[in-house]
Amino acid sequence: MHTDKFFMNCAYKEAIKAYNKDEVPIGAVIVLNDKIIARAHNLKENLKNATAHAEILVINKASKKLNNWFLKDCIMYVTLEPCPMCAGAIIQSRIKKVIYGAKSYQDGAIESTLKMFEIKGFNHYPISQYYDKNENCSKIISNYFKSKR
Amino acid sequence: MHTDKFFMNCAYKEAIKAYNKDEVPIGAVIVLNDKIIARAHNLKENLKNATAHAEILVINKASKKLNNWFLKDCIMYVTLEPCPMCAGAIIQSRIKKVIYGAKSYQDGAIESTLKMFEIKGFNHYPISQYYDKNENCSKIISNYFKSKR
Repeated sequence: MHTDKFFMNCAYKEAIKAYNKDEVPIGAVIVLNDKIIARAHNLKENLKNATAHAEILVINKASKKLNNWFLKDCIMYVTLEPCPMCAGAIIQSRIKKVIYGAKSYQDGAIESTLKMFEIKGFNHYPISQYYDKNENCSKIISNYFKSKR
Repeated sequence: MHTDKFFMNCAYKEAIKAYNKDEVPIGAVIVLNDKIIARAHNLKENLKNATAHAEILVINKASKKLNNWFLKDCIMYVTLEPCPMCAGAIIQSRIKKVIYGAKSYQDGAIESTLKMFEIKGFNHYPISQYYDKNENCSKIISNYFKSKR
């Protein structure tokens, strides 16, 4: 069995790809049965599409791979706490668990600005976990914004 | 100038297309300067992708059309109150205003289950409006679910 450390590092490698394309560096992977079935990174500027966050793109890829919108038993590792759009997409695609490597104080929708997975009435409740052992996940974002000033 | 009635009927025509493809019948259009620049309908089952809601697809199309993720001054007409994912996508793409033709008591994120556009700290606040004069928007959804029983 691979560890959270291993998979979060794979998500981080995706964030590096985004950084090298001059995107806010966020990466994600989706894991099923201990294997990565999809990898993606933020491509909002390159694709000129505000929905092209790492999480949406990795859900698209995983759905294609499984030929199913229902991402049963899948775990998402993502370097930053998902925004409301992405937290909503995680609910929609029935992802079992989300593990994120940094908190997003601006628009994090798991714990920072709202707790979307605690709102009553939805038909799916993903498990969520803040993984605080990979500081690179937040550092790469700070470095990106520093380089922009 | 076209009316809300006109544009909501265009969104409803998209919902009919979804119905005819055996999808939950939801349709959307995006309007800029009184012209429709994108039309889409829910394709979740056909595309086997939980993110393929009418709103996400119509944002994708409008972004392509304008060659820009920033959908400045755009208005979305959608037959059903957006879910959290789609309300988040509306914020991300900076859509100016959303007009919806029916309320979604299950997971509407504008007024029914949460009020996403009132949460403090986000960097964009779309105007939203419930347009209650096209009953077909909700009727087609009820009819769809009745046909499934």
